[in-house]
Amino acid sequence: MFEAAELGSSIAKGEYKKTEPVLRQELLQIQQELREFAGFPVIIVFAGVDGGGKGQTVNLLNEWMDPRWLVTRAYKSPTDEERERPEYWRFWRDLPPKGRIGLFLSSWYSQPVLDHVYGKLELTQFVDALDRIIAFENAQTEDGAVLLKFWMHLSKDAQQRRLENLEKDPLTSWRVKDRDWQHWEMYDRFIETAERTIMRTSTGRAPWTIVEGEDFNYRSLKVGIVIRDALRKRLDDARRERKVSAKTGSGGMRAQAAKANGKLKDTKQPVLAGASGPTILGTLDMSKKLDKAVYQKQLKEQQARLSRLCRDALKKEVTTILVFEGPDAAGKGGCIRRITAQLDARNYQVLPFAAPSDEEREHHYLWRFWRHLSRAGRLTIYDRSWYGRVLVERVEGFADENTWRRAYAEINDFEEQLIEHGIVLMKYWIHITKDEQLARFKAREKIPYKRWKLTEEDWRNREKWDEYERAAHDMVQHTSTLNAPWLLIEGNDKRYARIRVINTLADRLENRLAGD
Amino acid sequence: MFEAAELGSSIAKGEYKKTEPVLRQELLQIQQELREFAGFPVIIVFAGVDGGGKGQTVNLLNEWMDPRWLVTRAYKSPTDEERERPEYWRFWRDLPPKGRIGLFLSSWYSQPVLDHVYGKLELTQFVDALDRIIAFENAQTEDGAVLLKFWMHLSKDAQQRRLENLEKDPLTSWRVKDRDWQHWEMYDRFIETAERTIMRTSTGRAPWTIVEGEDFNYRSLKVGIVIRDALRKRLDDARRERKVSAKTGSGGMRAQAAKANGKLKDTKQPVLAGASGPTILGTLDMSKKLDKAVYQKQLKEQQARLSRLCRDALKKEVTTILVFEGPDAAGKGGCIRRITAQLDARNYQVLPFAAPSDEEREHHYLWRFWRHLSRAGRLTIYDRSWYGRVLVERVEGFADENTWRRAYAEINDFEEQLIEHGIVLMKYWIHITKDEQLARFKAREKIPYKRWKLTEEDWRNREKWDEYERAAHDMVQHTSTLNAPWLLIEGNDKRYARIRVINTLADRLENRLAGD
Repeated sequence: MFEAAELGSSIAKGEYKKTEPVLRQELLQIQQELREFAGFPVIIVFAGVDGGGKGQTVNLLNEWMDPRWLVTRAYKSPTDEERERPEYWRFWRDLPPKGRIGLFLSSWYSQPVLDHVYGKLELTQFVDALDRIIAFENAQTEDGAVLLKFWMHLSKDAQQRRLENLEKDPLTSWRVKDRDWQHWEMYDRFIETAERTIMRTSTGRAPWTIVEGEDFNYRSLKVGIVIRDALRKRLDDARRERKVSAKTGSGGMRAQAAKANGKLKDTKQPVLAGASGPTILGTLDMSKKLDKAVYQKQLKEQQARLSRLCRDALKKEVTTILVFEGPDAAGKGGCIRRITAQLDARNYQVLPFAAPSDEEREHHYLWRFWRHLSRAGRLTIYDRSWYGRVLVERVEGFADENTWRRAYAEINDFEEQLIEHGIVLMKYWIHITKDEQLARFKAREKIPYKRWKLTEEDWRNREKWDEYERAAHDMVQHTSTLNAPWLLIEGNDKRYARIRVINTLADRLENRLAGD
Repeated sequence: MFEAAELGSSIAKGEYKKTEPVLRQELLQIQQELREFAGFPVIIVFAGVDGGGKGQTVNLLNEWMDPRWLVTRAYKSPTDEERERPEYWRFWRDLPPKGRIGLFLSSWYSQPVLDHVYGKLELTQFVDALDRIIAFENAQTEDGAVLLKFWMHLSKDAQQRRLENLEKDPLTSWRVKDRDWQHWEMYDRFIETAERTIMRTSTGRAPWTIVEGEDFNYRSLKVGIVIRDALRKRLDDARRERKVSAKTGSGGMRAQAAKANGKLKDTKQPVLAGASGPTILGTLDMSKKLDKAVYQKQLKEQQARLSRLCRDALKKEVTTILVFEGPDAAGKGGCIRRITAQLDARNYQVLPFAAPSDEEREHHYLWRFWRHLSRAGRLTIYDRSWYGRVLVERVEGFADENTWRRAYAEINDFEEQLIEHGIVLMKYWIHITKDEQLARFKAREKIPYKRWKLTEEDWRNREKWDEYERAAHDMVQHTSTLNAPWLLIEGNDKRYARIRVINTLADRLENRLAGD
C-alpha cells in the first residue's frame, strides 16, 4: 500500500517557489468562497508516521490560509470533563460550523491505532473502533461535510533520517520525543495497523490520500493541491445545485441533487401513502387504568425509591438519560414532573427541545444533543429529542427522505456510544388515542392557565395524526434495540402512565446499580 | 442582623395548604409569561446556614415550577477545565438566557465565605472577593437580569435541632455530613462573616432576603412569594416600557425607560458634538517607518524568538490573550498572520468577532468572550473583541449611552480577572490615518482577490471616522490600566507596525516567563 509513497518524490526549490504563491492565492480564494457560501463544513484529518510532517503541514496551512476561519485541534489525554462523557464528545464539540475548515491532528484515529500497535486493543476491538470511526465520518459527510484525510508516510529509513535531522537542529530538536524513537522501533507493526486502518476507513466520501512525507516541498504542495481541488469541485457543484434549486423553487440542495441524479423518487406522498396497515402503536391496550388510591400510594413509594436510587447513581457515577416522545398532550410533562418531584435538583436537568439555535443549525443535527451531555452521575431528561428528525422533521418535510432515513443509523450509533460509556438510556413513548387528544385539547381551551399550552400548531399536527403514527411506528422498528429499547406507555390514563414510567425507570436503575 | 430571623416564624399546615396551590399557579403563570416575553434572565441565589433548607427550597421550586425552563446549578471543586480558566468562568457559562430562571446553590458566595471562616482568606482579600461579586452581579443586573438572593438563617440552637432531626430520619440522614457539624462548631464566625457579606453585597438591584429557615412552611412560602412579587413587578414594568417604546418607535426598552424617568438626556448627538478636541491617537507619530531589509531580518529573528517563548509558555501553562482593534484596513490581519506564522497551530487560535449568534444575544454581551477562553498555556488572538461595545456599538447606536458607559467598568473587571488568573493580556490598537485608509481602500478595489475585503460597510464606517476616533480615545482613557495597558501602534507603515507588535509581545512574554 505504501510502496508508491517511498519513491523519493520531491519538488525542486524553483518549482516550489513558482507554484506556492499561486496555490496560496487559490486556497485563500476558496476559503473566502466557502465562508460566503457557508453551505458545508470542511474536516481535514492528518495522521501517519511520526516525523512525516503532519504538524508542519497543519502549521503551513494556517500560514497559507486565513487562520481566523480555521479551527486547529490536537488531542492529548482527555480532561476529566471529557472522561465523564463518551469518547467522541470531545470530537463532536470541536467540529467546525458550515463555512469553516477544521484541521485535526492526533484525532479519532490516534487512540485506536496506538492501542492496537501497543497490543492493548485486540484485533476485533480494533475493527470495532474503526467501524465507530466510519459511522462518525459518514454522519458528517452525509450531512454535507467535506472530509479529507491525509496519511503522511515515511519509509523506515526515511523516518530515521528525519528524526536524526530534527534532533541536530536546535530549533527543531524539541520536536523529537523519546516516544518517537520508541515508535520507530515498532515501525512494522505500525505500518501493518496503518494499512488496515486505511483500507477499512477509506470511503468514497471520506477518502485517504497517502502522501510521501520526506520532502517538504513535495508533501506541502501535494496536500495543498488535494485540498484545493476537492473544495473547488465541491463549491462548484454546490453552487450549481443551489441554482437549480432556486429555479425550481423546491427542496433542499442535496435533495434536489439526488433527485436530479434520479436516485430519489419524489418523496413523502408515495412513501406515506404506501405505508398503511397496522402500526405497533395500534397494539397497545389503551384502556389500562389505575385506581386513584392505588396510584397515590404507589407514587409515593416509587418516588422515594427513585430518590434513593438516584443518590446511589450519583455516588457510583452512573449517568442516566431519559428520552420522552409522544403526541401533543400525551402527558410527557406530567410524567417528567412526577419523576423529578422527589429528586435533588442539583443532580438532574430537564432539557426541552424545540427549534435549534442558529449556531446549532450550522452543525450536524446531532451536535446539539452531544453538546448537552451531562457530567457523570447525573440524570438528564430530554423532553423531545434527537428523534425529532424521524418524527416532526419527517412528517413536516423539514428533512428529505434520504436525510431522515439515514438518521436511524446515526441515532443507533449515537445511542450505542452512550451505552458503551455506561450510561443508562431509557426511551419513553407516551401514547394516547386520537379521541383522548381531542378531549384534552378541549379541556385545555377551557382552563385559562392551561390555554397557553395549546397552540395553532397543535391543531395542525393533529391533522397529520396518521402520518405521525406511521413515523413513530417506523422509528420504533428501526431504533428499538436490545440495549436501548423503546418503552411504549399507554397514556390515556395519566395515573397508569406515570406509575409505569417511574416503575420501569426505577427497575432499570436498580438492576444497573446491582451490576446488571 | 439576624434577630428578625430567629423569631420562630411558622405557618400552620392549614394555611400552607390553602396558600401553596395559589402561589404555585402564579409562579407557573409568571414562568410562562417570562418565556414569552423573553426580555431578561432571572438569577436566584441561595446561601446561608447548613440545614437552613437551601437545597430543599430549590427542589421545591423545581417541583412548583416547570423544570424545563429552570436551570439549577451547584458547585463543588472545579474540574481541571475550570481550574485552567479564571474562577468565574464556570459561573458565566451557566448563566441562564433571557426568559429562563437559574437557581444557584453553593454559588460565587460559597468559596470566599468558607475561606474566610476557615481563616484561609484575610479580611482584605475577603473584601476584595466581595467586590468581585458585586461587579459580577452588577454586570448582570445592569444588563437587565433580575437577581434575587436568599439567605436561609437558623439560630445556633435551631441548627443543632435541624441537624439532629435530619440524622434521625433514615430518608434524610444522608444529607448530614461531618462537615455540617464542623460548621456548626464554627457558628459564630460563620454568622460574623455572613453579616459582612450581606451588608456589603446587598445592593438595590441585587438585594438579599433573609429567611428564617426552621419552619418548612414558612420559608417555602416566603421564598416563593418574594420571587413571585419581584418577577410580577418586573414583568409588568418591562411590558409597559416595551409598549411605550413601540409607540414612540425608538430606542431600546431600557433606554426608553431611562429617558422617561428623565435620567438620561437624548443621547449621541450632544455627547459626540461636545467631545471635540484632540485625541490620544492624534499624538502618534504616524510617519514611523521601517526599511525593508531591516524588516525582513528582524521579522525572522523575532518570529523565531516568539516561537521559543510560546513553547515555553505552553510548558509553564502561561496563557496569553491578544486583542486587536483599529480602523478598517489598519492591517490587523497582517499583524496576526506574522505572529502566528512560526507558531504551532495546535497551541494558538485566532477568533474573529462579528455579529453575535442568537444564543449569544440571549446573554450578557461578555458571555461570548467568557465562553471562548482557552485552556492553560495557549495563545488566543481576538480579531476585534469585547471592545466592540464601546467602539462600533457606541458609534452606530446599537448600545445606548448608559450601556456603553458601564461597559468600561465591566471590561476592566473582566480583564482584571484574566490577569489575576495569570493570563498575559496584550491589547493592540493598530492605527492608520484617514488618508492612508483611503489609499488602502482604493488599492483593494483594484486587486481582484482583495476586493472581497472591502464592503459597503467599510465606506459607511469611514464616514464616521471622527466618531470612531473619539470612541477609541475614550476607550483608551477608561481601559488602559497598569496591568492591561493599550499599546497604540503606528500602522501607516505595515512593516513598522508588525515588528512593533511582535517585539512588544515577545518582550512581555519573556518578562512574564522570567517571573516578571
